[in-house]
Amino acid sequence: MATLGLLEYEAARSEVRKVYDDIMATRQTDYINNFWKALAHDPVTLKRTWESLKQVMSAGCLDALTKELIYLAVSVTNQCPYCIASHTAAARKAGMTNAMLVELMSVVGMANETNRLASGYQVEIDERFRT
Amino acid sequence: MATLGLLEYEAARSEVRKVYDDIMATRQTDYINNFWKALAHDPVTLKRTWESLKQVMSAGCLDALTKELIYLAVSVTNQCPYCIASHTAAARKAGMTNAMLVELMSVVGMANETNRLASGYQVEIDERFRT
Amino acid sequence: MATLGLLEYEAARSEVRKVYDDIMATRQTDYINNFWKALAHDPVTLKRTWESLKQVMSAGCLDALTKELIYLAVSVTNQCPYCIASHTAAARKAGMTNAMLVELMSVVGMANETNRLASGYQVEIDERFRT
Amino acid sequence: MATLGLLEYEAARSEVRKVYDDIMATRQTDYINNFWKALAHDPVTLKRTWESLKQVMSAGCLDALTKELIYLAVSVTNQCPYCIASHTAAARKAGMTNAMLVELMSVVGMANETNRLASGYQVEIDERFRT
Amino acid sequence: MATLGLLEYEAARSEVRKVYDDIMATRQTDYINNFWKALAHDPVTLKRTWESLKQVMSAGCLDALTKELIYLAVSVTNQCPYCIASHTAAARKAGMTNAMLVELMSVVGMANETNRLASGYQVEIDERFRT
Amino acid sequence: MATLGLLEYEAARSEVRKVYDDIMATRQTDYINNFWKALAHDPVTLKRTWESLKQVMSAGCLDALTKELIYLAVSVTNQCPYCIASHTAAARKAGMTNAMLVELMSVVGMANETNRLASGYQVEIDERFRT
Repeated sequence: MATLGLLEYEAARSEVRKVYDDIMATRQTDYINNFWKALAHDPVTLKRTWESLKQVMSAGCLDALTKELIYLAVSVTNQCPYCIASHTAAARKAGMTNAMLVELMSVVGMANETNRLASGYQVEIDERFRT
Repeated sequence: MATLGLLEYEAARSEVRKVYDDIMATRQTDYINNFWKALAHDPVTLKRTWESLKQVMSAGCLDALTKELIYLAVSVTNQCPYCIASHTAAARKAGMTNAMLVELMSVVGMANETNRLASGYQVEIDERFRT
Repeated sequence: MATLGLLEYEAARSEVRKVYDDIMATRQTDYINNFWKALAHDPVTLKRTWESLKQVMSAGCLDALTKELIYLAVSVTNQCPYCIASHTAAARKAGMTNAMLVELMSVVGMANETNRLASGYQVEIDERFRT
Repeated sequence: MATLGLLEYEAARSEVRKVYDDIMATRQTDYINNFWKALAHDPVTLKRTWESLKQVMSAGCLDALTKELIYLAVSVTNQCPYCIASHTAAARKAGMTNAMLVELMSVVGMANETNRLASGYQVEIDERFRT
Repeated sequence: MATLGLLEYEAARSEVRKVYDDIMATRQTDYINNFWKALAHDPVTLKRTWESLKQVMSAGCLDALTKELIYLAVSVTNQCPYCIASHTAAARKAGMTNAMLVELMSVVGMANETNRLASGYQVEIDERFRT
Repeated sequence: MATLGLLEYEAARSEVRKVYDDIMATRQTDYINNFWKALAHDPVTLKRTWESLKQVMSAGCLDALTKELIYLAVSVTNQCPYCIASHTAAARKAGMTNAMLVELMSVVGMANETNRLASGYQVEIDERFRT
């Protein structure tokens, strides 16, 4: 179910349990995704990835929903089945409605199309858009 | 400056000028991006792409700024230099501050990382995330 | 101009010259692209890549033009500036007109869009399309 | 079977049925792919995507088979399982033989390889290939 | 199980069997992966791909394990499920431990993140890094 | 030269200077790459990214050179010009010879080719490679 297996809470060492506890407390759930259980065989990456994600995804100038929409847009562009499934769920939990989902998909589709048109036609960057 | 050259307003036929006029009216500007000038040698694609983009990017459930942020997130993920430059400008025009930009980049970077961790570790989709 | 520099004919050893000679004879030109000059510091890869390409791109069931169109479509999708520039030229030499180019770009753009819609909406493969 | 489910003809509103009817008439089939049924919860995107696709994929300078080959080449490069499955079927319906399929795959594989060699060796674009 | 089916040894012609024999001899196994069986319907590509792979993956300046790690890193970045599964196995056979696997994944994740940060922030290449 | 400009040491606040100091001490250099100067307008991401990178890239089971080779392989696959340029330099500093570079490129090219062949032919994962 994952290259190194899924590490359940009961079988985990305390350093892993601490991360699991923080995930559940932060997300107000008693469920740990397979993603974290798959990473947990490498406690250093588990901790670093979770802490980075927690910092990055917490509401700042951009609210939590907007961040989830961006996360999903990237996952769809990369066509990662796991991340599309899990972040569709996460975005919904953060407030994404079906109507928002379809607008998101339209933008993602359009951007993927025009990215190739711009590159394919070898369009030079406008002077005013240069950094 | 583009495979088929850039078609300026003065040199364009009326069907192209109509699209240019609509772009300028919609965006409240007198400037046409190189992207559109590069597409204009194919008036059918120019018209279809512009009308689709106009429909997709207008405020709906998601406001115009959120849509620009998503567009930029996709362009960064695809690493399209033209689209990154032009949509950074477009997002700023729609209200993106520097503080929002750095939060956006953090989310995009993080999602690109975890997409590969999920795929690389062959993580099975959780039962509850399945459609 | 390339990581290991560009190896000119005059400076090349005989094994490299043989490949250069074959490229020029096959393509009926006296010009060697930078791509080959950049690879030539690794004569084994140069020879293998050229011979593979020669075999793959020669007319078979699919004619040379169709193969060049496919090559360009892939290069646009991957957004490789060098390959877009060089294979736009190669496709033109093989007979691609401007009208074909704009149709090619439309298909490439559309496919990149619908690839993300299919993945993003997690569409299950139809029974009849399964292998 | 898709994020928003698959919308069957019987359950669809008239605006969706009209698109379904046009798909079936254009393709001379009584079958609607899951892709369209998954999009149909967003009738605006359904209509826009279908009409764009219909316009883009109809025979022009490039015949319908060549367009399907290009579509498949993009889908393989993006590694979209749904689109590979459905467009392999579509290309076959348009006349692609097994012998054409293997030539297509060879070109796609080769282009993906040389795209990275060109980028990896940082090859500068030849003066004569510049736009 | 593959677009053109899987060609078993018993059903294969002598030119295909020769490649199968060489694969088994080189890898010291009596097992042929589905990948080769799927390619075998195109004996020319089968032979070319196998001989290229054999040449590329044999120990040189870089040992066989390092080459397998690089292969896996690319496959994870491209998110190819088949290649991730088969090259995780191949890398393990070449000596990759679980501890190496987790370090590999960390590097791959990190590189995918910083690739987007560098592109997204439109960072100009440092003078000293130019070729 | 970067979306938010490049932040020089002299103009930086102490929290940024601390990161710059650590980069220079760790890498035994007095040079700060443009990448870090571009990130520095977001001190939180700068610190997190540098500390993650430092942890990930330090020698473990995999030595520093192997990690740099993997990093470069990913950057080439993603075709990130900045990262290819900077990590070619970093890999050389870690001991990569020209002979290693050409072997690396061969493996990267080959993997990108076979990833598409495996996906394109819809090859099912072998029972023995499943997790």
